Amino acid sequence: MDVYTLGEAFAVVTSSRVRHEHEARLDVTGAEFIVAVGLARLGHEVAWLGKVGGDEAGARILTVLRGEGVDVSDARAQEGSPTGMLLKEVRAGQEAKTTYYRTGTRLAQGNVPVDRIAGSRFLHVSGITAALNARDAMHAAVRAARAAGVTVSVAVDYREQLWPDLREATEELGALACSADVLFVRQSELDLVKPALTGDREIIVMRGTRGVSVRVDGVRHDLPRPATPVVDPGGSEEAFVAGYLSALLEYLHPADRLRRGNLLTAFAASGPSDWQGLPTTAELPLLEIEG
Amino acid sequence: MDVYTLGEAFAVVTSSRVRHEHEARLDVTGAEFIVAVGLARLGHEVAWLGKVGGDEAGARILTVLRGEGVDVSDARAQEGSPTGMLLKEVRAGQEAKTTYYRTGTRLAQGNVPVDRIAGSRFLHVSGITAALNARDAMHAAVRAARAAGVTVSVAVDYREQLWPDLREATEELGALACSADVLFVRQSELDLVKPALTGDREIIVMRGTRGVSVRVDGVRHDLPRPATPVVDPGGSEEAFVAGYLSALLEYLHPADRLRRGNLLTAFAASGPSDWQGLPTTAELPLLEIEG
Amino acid sequence: MDVYTLGEAFAVVTSSRVRHEHEARLDVTGAEFIVAVGLARLGHEVAWLGKVGGDEAGARILTVLRGEGVDVSDARAQEGSPTGMLLKEVRAGQEAKTTYYRTGTRLAQGNVPVDRIAGSRFLHVSGITAALNARDAMHAAVRAARAAGVTVSVAVDYREQLWPDLREATEELGALACSADVLFVRQSELDLVKPALTGDREIIVMRGTRGVSVRVDGVRHDLPRPATPVVDPGGSEEAFVAGYLSALLEYLHPADRLRRGNLLTAFAASGPSDWQGLPTTAELPLLEIEG
Amino acid sequence: MDVYTLGEAFAVVTSSRVRHEHEARLDVTGAEFIVAVGLARLGHEVAWLGKVGGDEAGARILTVLRGEGVDVSDARAQEGSPTGMLLKEVRAGQEAKTTYYRTGTRLAQGNVPVDRIAGSRFLHVSGITAALNARDAMHAAVRAARAAGVTVSVAVDYREQLWPDLREATEELGALACSADVLFVRQSELDLVKPALTGDREIIVMRGTRGVSVRVDGVRHDLPRPATPVVDPGGSEEAFVAGYLSALLEYLHPADRLRRGNLLTAFAASGPSDWQGLPTTAELPLLEIEG
Amino acid sequence: MDVYTLGEAFAVVTSSRVRHEHEARLDVTGAEFIVAVGLARLGHEVAWLGKVGGDEAGARILTVLRGEGVDVSDARAQEGSPTGMLLKEVRAGQEAKTTYYRTGTRLAQGNVPVDRIAGSRFLHVSGITAALNARDAMHAAVRAARAAGVTVSVAVDYREQLWPDLREATEELGALACSADVLFVRQSELDLVKPALTGDREIIVMRGTRGVSVRVDGVRHDLPRPATPVVDPGGSEEAFVAGYLSALLEYLHPADRLRRGNLLTAFAASGPSDWQGLPTTAELPLLEIEG
Amino acid sequence: MDVYTLGEAFAVVTSSRVRHEHEARLDVTGAEFIVAVGLARLGHEVAWLGKVGGDEAGARILTVLRGEGVDVSDARAQEGSPTGMLLKEVRAGQEAKTTYYRTGTRLAQGNVPVDRIAGSRFLHVSGITAALNARDAMHAAVRAARAAGVTVSVAVDYREQLWPDLREATEELGALACSADVLFVRQSELDLVKPALTGDREIIVMRGTRGVSVRVDGVRHDLPRPATPVVDPGGSEEAFVAGYLSALLEYLHPADRLRRGNLLTAFAASGPSDWQGLPTTAELPLLEIEG
Repeated sequence: MDVYTLGEAFAVVTSSRVRHEHEARLDVTGAEFIVAVGLARLGHEVAWLGKVGGDEAGARILTVLRGEGVDVSDARAQEGSPTGMLLKEVRAGQEAKTTYYRTGTRLAQGNVPVDRIAGSRFLHVSGITAALNARDAMHAAVRAARAAGVTVSVAVDYREQLWPDLREATEELGALACSADVLFVRQSELDLVKPALTGDREIIVMRGTRGVSVRVDGVRHDLPRPATPVVDPGGSEEAFVAGYLSALLEYLHPADRLRRGNLLTAFAASGPSDWQGLPTTAELPLLEIEG
Repeated sequence: MDVYTLGEAFAVVTSSRVRHEHEARLDVTGAEFIVAVGLARLGHEVAWLGKVGGDEAGARILTVLRGEGVDVSDARAQEGSPTGMLLKEVRAGQEAKTTYYRTGTRLAQGNVPVDRIAGSRFLHVSGITAALNARDAMHAAVRAARAAGVTVSVAVDYREQLWPDLREATEELGALACSADVLFVRQSELDLVKPALTGDREIIVMRGTRGVSVRVDGVRHDLPRPATPVVDPGGSEEAFVAGYLSALLEYLHPADRLRRGNLLTAFAASGPSDWQGLPTTAELPLLEIEG
Repeated sequence: MDVYTLGEAFAVVTSSRVRHEHEARLDVTGAEFIVAVGLARLGHEVAWLGKVGGDEAGARILTVLRGEGVDVSDARAQEGSPTGMLLKEVRAGQEAKTTYYRTGTRLAQGNVPVDRIAGSRFLHVSGITAALNARDAMHAAVRAARAAGVTVSVAVDYREQLWPDLREATEELGALACSADVLFVRQSELDLVKPALTGDREIIVMRGTRGVSVRVDGVRHDLPRPATPVVDPGGSEEAFVAGYLSALLEYLHPADRLRRGNLLTAFAASGPSDWQGLPTTAELPLLEIEG
Repeated sequence: MDVYTLGEAFAVVTSSRVRHEHEARLDVTGAEFIVAVGLARLGHEVAWLGKVGGDEAGARILTVLRGEGVDVSDARAQEGSPTGMLLKEVRAGQEAKTTYYRTGTRLAQGNVPVDRIAGSRFLHVSGITAALNARDAMHAAVRAARAAGVTVSVAVDYREQLWPDLREATEELGALACSADVLFVRQSELDLVKPALTGDREIIVMRGTRGVSVRVDGVRHDLPRPATPVVDPGGSEEAFVAGYLSALLEYLHPADRLRRGNLLTAFAASGPSDWQGLPTTAELPLLEIEG
Repeated sequence: MDVYTLGEAFAVVTSSRVRHEHEARLDVTGAEFIVAVGLARLGHEVAWLGKVGGDEAGARILTVLRGEGVDVSDARAQEGSPTGMLLKEVRAGQEAKTTYYRTGTRLAQGNVPVDRIAGSRFLHVSGITAALNARDAMHAAVRAARAAGVTVSVAVDYREQLWPDLREATEELGALACSADVLFVRQSELDLVKPALTGDREIIVMRGTRGVSVRVDGVRHDLPRPATPVVDPGGSEEAFVAGYLSALLEYLHPADRLRRGNLLTAFAASGPSDWQGLPTTAELPLLEIEG
Repeated sequence: MDVYTLGEAFAVVTSSRVRHEHEARLDVTGAEFIVAVGLARLGHEVAWLGKVGGDEAGARILTVLRGEGVDVSDARAQEGSPTGMLLKEVRAGQEAKTTYYRTGTRLAQGNVPVDRIAGSRFLHVSGITAALNARDAMHAAVRAARAAGVTVSVAVDYREQLWPDLREATEELGALACSADVLFVRQSELDLVKPALTGDREIIVMRGTRGVSVRVDGVRHDLPRPATPVVDPGGSEEAFVAGYLSALLEYLHPADRLRRGNLLTAFAASGPSDWQGLPTTAELPLLEIEG
């Protein structure tokens, strides 16, 4: 297994105006779900661990992942519990408004297959999982990875509405970031994970409109944001993570890691779905970005 | 006020196949919400009491009710809490699958305006509210109505997935039904509310494909189900309740009460929304049903 | 020319619920427009005369007719005047509500090419034209046809909202019907055109759910309404007229005239457009109706 | 009442290509309708006076306004007369083509409630009303406002196709502008209202791509046009008026009035509806514009 | 492996009116594709063998099958060759018109994994494959199955436009039918496969509106067609095959085999897709059919 | 006849993501089809020669052309053969992926009406036709034109997937280009048609994002690409050809020829169809482009 990842996945309903419109779009998504699909499309072996509800939305999540070639043999559907749901309002030029409908599906510590993680090259987790029902499972996975020398990749992914208590967020996300060998952090999250900013981990800073940067072996690399059309920015950052990790798995140069991250960002944002736009290896040349 | 009603309202997302389709429909609904709209369109003065979330879905619920002329001056939006949500799969010829996403919005006993209820002709409540967050508020409203001699209308409306414990449902719904002067009960719910089936209350039995019946002053009246096109059956029973109550408020003959109930059922089922198809008084002649 | 026809054509917007829905359908239509398309698809030579507005809707009307092979060389676009418009609400199982937006486009008597009418086998007009801006032109056309021995086909087509004065309607439509050799009349219109019911004209009575009938040479022929799916009944009667006239032009037996009329009704009603569903000769066998 | 406004409202059908497409969008709109919704969403008390048809489109207009909290107690539905209609073709990068379907609904002088206007802080009217059926009513309202010292706000809003006679437009709109305390005028309309450009009224000039400006107390303030995405520019100018007036009602600085006007322009243009995109006070920070 | 199947799969575009409409639906389909999905959803182990094009449509076919848990490890994508395509016109009440766009993708005899077929309980093939590019491969598979004592299931599935020469069809399909242990044949195809109608094979006759029948051990069982709503009949017969085979694999009684076949027909026809409506075992009780 | 043109036309299905989406758009298109419509809308007399299938798609092609006023009296529908089809994936910011489904419809040399071509001012052909089934017919047409002194216009229009053998393409397209009086060539095709770049023919070079240029009488004229919104670039180059030829037919100055070409490019790209956005002469001022 190249990458093992775990987290929650959701049904997501997108509307251009929740207050008025009847037309909506139903899809599935999830931070690690997107990363898993992105990596699988680029030819990597990926496993996704999560618990979905025992309903049609849960079936859709597992069907999509299986269809994309992601290993979901560890994932479970929990009968009697619905899959979580997001309601998003996406209006042109405005930040999306997202409502989380969380449910009782919960990945427990005991669901984490320590051996399979130990046999992977990378473990990838995201801070959103630390805020949701699967925190303990996530910690168990990180511990298993570190114990086995598996590279740990962490996306900080702080979502304000999921952390009622800022102090708790700082503590949890800070600790999580300190477990990372590869750390994806937004400009706005730097303060949250200050303790993790020292040391020799590979820290990729996502600066939004100002592009991305990484410092590797004391050299800083920068890339501007791609100037390609944005239909729906949802999933862009997770796509960046998938692209970057893919390039890292292929031992590409840091600048090329950023470039592939940006490329996947551009693909993901070119359509309404968080993950459908992700490219196969053969499609990578279809979009041209600067840098 | 002709009718005071209270309960929960929801955003509702409808899909023809949750497992596969992208296209979905976003609307708002709620058992008493539908009854309130149905009565207001027929010219009655109606007030709806409920708590919605402090979000766009909550704004939509209140906007629709206000637009329809329903008095929402007692309703509240609860900042920081999302509006509840339903995800429905509606496939031709099959019973809908519904997932409830309940949230922390909660109508408390203290939110119930005893005086306004006492000043109404009817109070209408539904058993679904007894299963949700507003049970205490509902009991307070029923007590206030009974104390003031206000006619109490109850729809049993048992929803299996909301009552994990059947005994609790039997107890709660049975007691609620016993408070009713007018009782709407499905054939399948007769056992649940057995203690309420005696006495001189007006009991309307909804027998699905076998039509509706009521016994008034010892005479039983029966009407077959209307043979009109069904686009989406959602909201049909609530529409029946609105039609029946409207005819009762106008002192129509029991057979005419059933007839108007059926008529509203036919209107509601003729389109995809639970409430948009409800007729104004002027529109009543547009649909012809037998009986 | 097999059939010359004249009348008004309109842009038509159809909604399933004008009060609430955003989704609508834009098309073009018109009583004689439909008859012309129906006849042309069945291989007859047809000309349509009318005035449309000098706008995109007018261009659409002429483009459709030209595309279908209807001769529109006499038709005109009137710059500076918009094309008329209909707003229709079509709800399952209910009679459509139609609003007419009439405009200043007016076919004048002088626009009627007497010679071309005289050179046709049939002239077809509809009573709706007598209620609209083209009444004088229609009379001129009928006179020209009668003078030249051209068979005159008339559909009574009384539309209540276009005739504020019932007496005027009775007078106008009665006189028009008396000019007909072939008369299409709804059961409900029989009283309006009483004076035309005697004599030896061919009178086809359209009885809605009770089917159609015609008396030819003292023999009455009856056909029940086709039991095929109805998606939108708009254009059904005009389709019947086209089918009947087509069979008459081909000297088919009266029972076969009714049958082809019914067949075109079934085709027209099987889709949302008033005319798009009309069959070519090759498509006639695709739908099976009884009779 | 903060603002009293009066005018006509319409059903509006939007198509991306009237000549070819079936898909269309049905909505409602109106110059003062948009201003009223914009002000109500920002927390102001607004009343809208107008006559709609006694049909579903008219019901939609009143339902929307009531739902938004606009006071429509003076508005009337005129039975037997349809609501006016607009047919718009909106193609990317091109000016919209609009066809007006005007009807007999007419707001008469006698419908104007002089007392209620006298009791408002502002009266807002638009020049489009002077071209339509409600001109006399509008004059009566302006007189009532001036007599009572109510601030009169006027948007010149010259629409070429509604004024067959340019001289009449110049006279009417010039006189109307001279009654204004606050005057919204497009760059291209300056010549039409020349007599009103002197004096101490507050004149806001809308220069399209070159931004907006206002001179207050001898100081000119300028703001560029917002560089936010434009999905459909319909309603942008009316949104500007609502934003500006809202800021004026809150005694904001002239530069902040322009800024709020621009902000509402950006919100309105970010979606297909003329008014659905208008923000509540809480939503104002969601869009960032320069200036 | 419970069932091994092989054949062609296609992209399919469905339109309600090819001549006029812009709106269309893009999906994937195939006779054995549908059978495979139907069986997999009911919990059976199924493998599908086929060659798709090296394009997005081919990727979609394999993604769907993989997502549904069908084993596609033997299937191949052929670079440089497009996936076949169907264009279907589906109009209410009319038989679909289908155009086949066949391409160079061709399953060769050498692609057939004899061992895997020998290790399966059933082999299922359909006569449409005999008419397409994979005939030799199909024969090889049938030979392998018969040699290994694997039950051979054949659906005759004669499609007129794919067999220019009726004699060739009779020969090919007759021979194929004679290889079958279980034979699915339409009433209209009985003449084509006369030689196969004797012997002790299990012959299921699909009589369209007159239902289905089977003779097992000398006893004939009959079931009427289900009276459930038909949204799109596409895929109904293949769904029947999947249901029947599933019941056969579970050793159900012949009458129950027909019943499950009918049940799957009803599910498949209840939506626009040929396969999306197919039920999981848990969904089977959601639709009620007689019989 | 101003322009005679010949070639193939296709049904075209457009999807934003073939791998996932159900929603698609069905239209018709063709290189010379677009040029013909573009010229007809600008008032020129145009004839289009081609063979379509004897199916609904073929009927749509001929209906559209006839509706637009293009002379299709030489065109034929070939019974028993389907119309060719394109499947296009159009994703924001990416080059379209197109799959060609070619069929047996074939325009033969004998179908070319030499006299009608000889009587035209221009013959227009495109290199795509040389790669498809109508090559011989195209050569016959070019010979007829040259023999009669008719101006020959050629668009090189090299499509990689239609020419398996580059050498053949170079030979064929080079020879075709040498027959041209007016030659439209993409920057990327200059090498393919080298022998045609000398001589005094009018060569228009389409440089994509770098604009267009032409050298006439030794003077080179350049125009940048129009900066108007691009909804779907399909048909842009053919629209350019139509605009350029139209201006040439009207003896406009070379710079104005480029300008009109660019203008039609902008119109064509402003909507999803290859040809629906093309302007009439009256619409030309609706779009403003620089240059």
